[in-house]
Amino acid sequence: MQPWRFVRISCPDLRKIVHTLVEQERIRTAKALGEREDEFMKLKVEGIMECPVVLVAALCEQRDQYIFGRRTLPEMDLASLACAIQNMWLAARAEGLGLGWVSMFEADALKNLLNMPEDSHPIAILCLGHVEKFYDKPMLEQQQWAVPKDLKNLLYENTWDTPCR
Amino acid sequence: MQPWRFVRISCPDLRKIVHTLVEQERIRTAKALGEREDEFMKLKVEGIMECPVVLVAALCEQRDQYIFGRRTLPEMDLASLACAIQNMWLAARAEGLGLGWVSMFEADALKNLLNMPEDSHPIAILCLGHVEKFYDKPMLEQQQWAVPKDLKNLLYENTWDTPCR
Repeated sequence: MQPWRFVRISCPDLRKIVHTLVEQERIRTAKALGEREDEFMKLKVEGIMECPVVLVAALCEQRDQYIFGRRTLPEMDLASLACAIQNMWLAARAEGLGLGWVSMFEADALKNLLNMPEDSHPIAILCLGHVEKFYDKPMLEQQQWAVPKDLKNLLYENTWDTPCR
Repeated sequence: MQPWRFVRISCPDLRKIVHTLVEQERIRTAKALGEREDEFMKLKVEGIMECPVVLVAALCEQRDQYIFGRRTLPEMDLASLACAIQNMWLAARAEGLGLGWVSMFEADALKNLLNMPEDSHPIAILCLGHVEKFYDKPMLEQQQWAVPKDLKNLLYENTWDTPCR
């Protein structure tokens, strides 16, 4: 299906506006998190102004014409794009580069900014480049924001909630 | 977020019913494709009865509680699961195993069959195992179902539809 499109943000002024959109949503997300607002505001959730390469990843227009594999699950276009981003993520890591997936933005605001068609849909702002160091653990675990789930609670056998033998 | 759950289908009778659900949707998809119906019916789109391991990949219940990174883009849970499946796909390939992602099924029928919660959501039936050979090109390209897009039509710069310099 290849529903993916990538927009490289090379214009410095445009990058600043993209950053502002994310900063606005970061504050709204913090408020929505309630009692964890202050804790959240200390986390690093984007590197848009620091990284060398900023890309917006989006689903293309006119996707409704594509039926194969998505008659009952139209969201498979999003799954395809997520797989493409994951490939890019692993490829970057293999080259010693870091990649951050930012999903804190209003899709409509970003679409207007980049002159995107009505039926396209941005799902990621990707921050790519060299990093000082990689985290020893997933960042949200290291910062004690989240606790990783035990594998036995993620794998079932034949029926939901039935542990694998 | 770790919204992913995997259900291993080890019961032979259950596997047969899963296969029937997919076969029903395969026929409905063929009809929806109109003039390409016959061409579509010749394509291999699943290997549920032949492969050694069948897994259903699904989004977990109670995802609405999770706000971080999905206040404006709630579909990021699906993106997370797609990334997990892509990791599994690449890991399998590195071991010389094939993996097929089947998305031809009615989600509600599969949910009922596996006793899944109302607010969970299956997005893949994964067929995993040894294969006779890997395709030289993506299968849909090799079977002349689809033509790969040119990279220059997938990459833009600063504005939609503006080619990268």
